[in-house]
Amino acid sequence: MADQTKDKTWLSDTIRERKTLLTVGLDTDLLKLPPAVEGDLLKFNQAIIDATRDHCIAYKINFAFYESLGIKGWEIMEQTLAHIGNHHFTIADAKRGDIGNTSEMYARAVFDHLGFDSITIHPYMGADSVKPFLRDGKWVILLALTSNEGSKDFQQLKLESGRKVYEEVMEISSWWGSADNMMYVVGATHPDELLKIRTNYPEHFFLVPGVGAQGGDLVAICEHGMTSSGGLLINASRSILYAGSGEDFAEKAQQEAAALNSVMSRFF
Amino acid sequence: MADQTKDKTWLSDTIRERKTLLTVGLDTDLLKLPPAVEGDLLKFNQAIIDATRDHCIAYKINFAFYESLGIKGWEIMEQTLAHIGNHHFTIADAKRGDIGNTSEMYARAVFDHLGFDSITIHPYMGADSVKPFLRDGKWVILLALTSNEGSKDFQQLKLESGRKVYEEVMEISSWWGSADNMMYVVGATHPDELLKIRTNYPEHFFLVPGVGAQGGDLVAICEHGMTSSGGLLINASRSILYAGSGEDFAEKAQQEAAALNSVMSRFF
Repeated sequence: MADQTKDKTWLSDTIRERKTLLTVGLDTDLLKLPPAVEGDLLKFNQAIIDATRDHCIAYKINFAFYESLGIKGWEIMEQTLAHIGNHHFTIADAKRGDIGNTSEMYARAVFDHLGFDSITIHPYMGADSVKPFLRDGKWVILLALTSNEGSKDFQQLKLESGRKVYEEVMEISSWWGSADNMMYVVGATHPDELLKIRTNYPEHFFLVPGVGAQGGDLVAICEHGMTSSGGLLINASRSILYAGSGEDFAEKAQQEAAALNSVMSRFF
Repeated sequence: MADQTKDKTWLSDTIRERKTLLTVGLDTDLLKLPPAVEGDLLKFNQAIIDATRDHCIAYKINFAFYESLGIKGWEIMEQTLAHIGNHHFTIADAKRGDIGNTSEMYARAVFDHLGFDSITIHPYMGADSVKPFLRDGKWVILLALTSNEGSKDFQQLKLESGRKVYEEVMEISSWWGSADNMMYVVGATHPDELLKIRTNYPEHFFLVPGVGAQGGDLVAICEHGMTSSGGLLINASRSILYAGSGEDFAEKAQQEAAALNSVMSRFF
């Protein structure tokens, strides 16, 4: 397969062409598979990918769901990636971050061995934990303001400087990379903050999880976050994967993806 | 193998019995193996474990180094764990942390599938990202003040409350678990802060990386951090693994472990 670089131009052009910001999150839980796939997680992923590939720009693979299956899970992840092919942006939702020599190892695992276009990263350990992931043609997606309840515990605390912790994370880290190799995670459950963040960072792409099962408001997200180049990758996982539990689960997943796209299409 | 719970009593008793706080970090880099093992990473790990098992209390497996090798690395990790057996505390140095349902999956991977006693966790995503790892008989090792240069970027920023970010992380998270199921990472490169942290948290165990290759001062760490129950797991990785590059690499590793222990032994 040709190894096409998924740079910002590719993202913007492809988003405009497909008229979608949708990222399908393959957080596939063995315990939630429809009976029709007879416990075959790979077969399920392949069916979901085939049903949604014309309706999305990216696939996000949540490592936890594969690691929990051990070696078999790792194999399924590799086979899932192969099935996605090279016409979508791929996100290793691995949430890594460690001291320099260790982050370099994770970068090798995710970029060289597995061939992902991007990886989600924890900012807590600072510059030398993030920089090994900054490579030409690859993307760091740094956690800024996450979609979960716990985002208030530390991310939203006020610093002496007047900024919140997540604002400081964005301000400082924006100097480590650029809008061409760094994105930020901004949860769909914070539409008001998204507007402010977009004003401060007009050029960056944001990965927005939390639409669907977590209750984020898709219209507000598009209104507050979209730019002329797209600027958002909006993730839905459970609401698509488990849209149906019958034999028609893939068709139902496609309908759910199409429904999300019909909302987004108003903004193109 | 009997599945013995490595609770705080086991840790304290075993530390006193073996007179060591040493944790051997298996951050094994394929590119740094001595010629004698002919590229066989498992054989290397087994030799290091056999040489050090009487000189340490714990082994820390750095996931990045295994994940970078793909499925083969995962197999080596499982075989390494089997070789360690059940007489040491095992640390999954995986630095995970995600929304609730995903953290639950990582907990299954590390505790149920692999059988580790503990896992290192990023605090950035807050309570619901950490709590799924809090189980009876297992340990969360939360990143507080890490050993790397980047620890100053966010961890040491001052909050409006007057506390530093890492202090707030410790204060808030100490209510999520207890000294019986939560430890903190406090880098050996911060001996003065360690003294203050120990005063505030007299009962908690701390995992202390950064001795050896990263330059932390072992004597100061013991003076400032030890308690009557031990209270510390002091990690050395590269300084032990690569103590020698000849055929006697395992003997050299043993000597390095013994040298670290001879410093620690003064404090028992």
